[in-house]
Amino acid sequence: MNRLSDDLTVKAAAPLPLRRQPLPTSHDIVLAHGGGGQLTDDLLEQTILPRLGNATLNQLLDSALLPSFGQDRPTITIDSYVVQPWRFPGGDIGRLAVSGTVNDLAVNGARAEGLALSLIIAEGFARTDLEVVLDSIASTVAEAGVQIVTGDTKVVGRNQADGIYITTAGVGRRSREQHLGFDCVQAGDMLVVNGPIGEHGLAVMLAREMPHIDSVLRSDAAPLNHLIQSCLKCLGNQVAFMRDPTRSGLAGVAADLAQHSGYHVTLDEARIPVRPEARHAADMLGLDLLEVANEGKVVFVVRPEAAAALVRHLQDLGHPRAAIIGSVGHARDGMCELLTHIGGRRIIQKPYGEQLSRIC
Amino acid sequence: MNRLSDDLTVKAAAPLPLRRQPLPTSHDIVLAHGGGGQLTDDLLEQTILPRLGNATLNQLLDSALLPSFGQDRPTITIDSYVVQPWRFPGGDIGRLAVSGTVNDLAVNGARAEGLALSLIIAEGFARTDLEVVLDSIASTVAEAGVQIVTGDTKVVGRNQADGIYITTAGVGRRSREQHLGFDCVQAGDMLVVNGPIGEHGLAVMLAREMPHIDSVLRSDAAPLNHLIQSCLKCLGNQVAFMRDPTRSGLAGVAADLAQHSGYHVTLDEARIPVRPEARHAADMLGLDLLEVANEGKVVFVVRPEAAAALVRHLQDLGHPRAAIIGSVGHARDGMCELLTHIGGRRIIQKPYGEQLSRIC
Repeated sequence: MNRLSDDLTVKAAAPLPLRRQPLPTSHDIVLAHGGGGQLTDDLLEQTILPRLGNATLNQLLDSALLPSFGQDRPTITIDSYVVQPWRFPGGDIGRLAVSGTVNDLAVNGARAEGLALSLIIAEGFARTDLEVVLDSIASTVAEAGVQIVTGDTKVVGRNQADGIYITTAGVGRRSREQHLGFDCVQAGDMLVVNGPIGEHGLAVMLAREMPHIDSVLRSDAAPLNHLIQSCLKCLGNQVAFMRDPTRSGLAGVAADLAQHSGYHVTLDEARIPVRPEARHAADMLGLDLLEVANEGKVVFVVRPEAAAALVRHLQDLGHPRAAIIGSVGHARDGMCELLTHIGGRRIIQKPYGEQLSRIC
Repeated sequence: MNRLSDDLTVKAAAPLPLRRQPLPTSHDIVLAHGGGGQLTDDLLEQTILPRLGNATLNQLLDSALLPSFGQDRPTITIDSYVVQPWRFPGGDIGRLAVSGTVNDLAVNGARAEGLALSLIIAEGFARTDLEVVLDSIASTVAEAGVQIVTGDTKVVGRNQADGIYITTAGVGRRSREQHLGFDCVQAGDMLVVNGPIGEHGLAVMLAREMPHIDSVLRSDAAPLNHLIQSCLKCLGNQVAFMRDPTRSGLAGVAADLAQHSGYHVTLDEARIPVRPEARHAADMLGLDLLEVANEGKVVFVVRPEAAAALVRHLQDLGHPRAAIIGSVGHARDGMCELLTHIGGRRIIQKPYGEQLSRIC
């Protein structure tokens, strides 16, 4: 190298007593926490890694490496969570995000092998609140038996987000032998659900619209992967299709099932499990329970001879109100109808939008 | 089934002339577009699938199934993009999101096998602007030779996001033979970059702070996967480590390299390629070019005997200003220093935050 002054170089290169200075700790999140510099590292080291750290995440690589899946097939899912309020009876945005991603893999017959977590935080969000969310994420990944393996943090201005938004993605692994999908559905199949519907959406809506009401209603947000794996193990290829009835609720799943399988689908209102407090809340808020979001429910479509066994298995797993709630008919009209309590019938359509926004 | 009135049931079940009604088209995004109901389906069918659709995405499953990777290892990455303004000279948030995710997989030696795309849109964002972003995503995934295989859309209130935020995750596939990482770095290795630095950050900053200035400066945002795969093919295991110098710039990568490899790393300022317009903009904005974000650059750490060959290979691939910009020393002090133009030395630290927020 042709330098202007070797002398200068040598003089300036004397040992420098430099090390990373301890950084001032901020009680609230500031823009620089999302800058990718020392403050981001500080947030990672002080707040995120102590809660979510593991051998893979701790490497902080741009992308996380997972063990080979062999002949199993990789699956990928992503969802953003913008629920408001971020904390509600029965859960918070962290529990919701992890459960949603684990469940989206599980209903596709895949085991979650690694989750990726991306935070968008508004400047001024309290660090203690962030800790609550991260603790919730940590306890939910532990419950599901999965790990956060990579992540990202961005901070935007005070009025550029409402508290915190979380996006979770997951990589799953599905056996080559597993066949699930609309195309596996047959006439005569039965619809089974693992418990009472509508509780997530109603709990969030009550928390938002009537924060001073003290209801016993709680969100059902929960990871369902162990439950689903156990049912698949028990019933094998007698399960044709699964979906978690989140946004647009049971109505959305049933309408999609009818539309995409091409069969006529019937739901039997009298058999759909609903807790009295949920019915009361739905009446009070003027909502159709069938359209309300769930975050800990799964709808199974199974061969008719397996339906009773599935309900018993779900009950044995601690879901006493699991029930057969409908069936797939022979007509190829792609329509879904509800057999009502009083024996009438009405068409079930996918809701136009959501009754309230930001429910998940 | 024990119904109240079989007669009523039969009467009401007469054929119903129901089919999905055409929905009114809104010029702007409304909350219900994120509700998971018919309006979300409409957005998907009218706006998203025509641009991004493919055999996997079109199935609209909760999680997308990819072909088996055999003995190759799966990798996963995630990043949220909140850049402001969302459109800037040389790119937009869509090009940025796809490039960033593809590049995060590529620098880890993995080929992107499927991308997941999650949108958080503020109510009132113009549908035509969304189309611009989606077109940009479509052209960038085509350029990179990858596909969007799954996604999610959420809508928040007008003042609850600034236009549009995008989170992209990617699943990659890395050969078992590929070894890359801080632990592969050795004393004597050289640092190589594929071209002039600082252009993404400066282009965004100029667009935001001085929108009326007409600069020739453009963001370098681009997918680098083909470039990186070609270099790995050419040099094999002589490449020890790669990283894209995004937030916190070249300074951040060099400081991380020193810290995590434990070696002394030296950058040679005179050799770092910089365009005159970038230097001018950095001076005008009072920024240190070393700390400014890039979105189409990669820093390679290679064995000394391979460095010149890598530079020639990059030049052959259309990167005329590729250069050797530094080296890994023998000292085990984990520090990074800059040999300045005038022959002085200064310590390079990771920036405290980012000079301006929301740069990516």
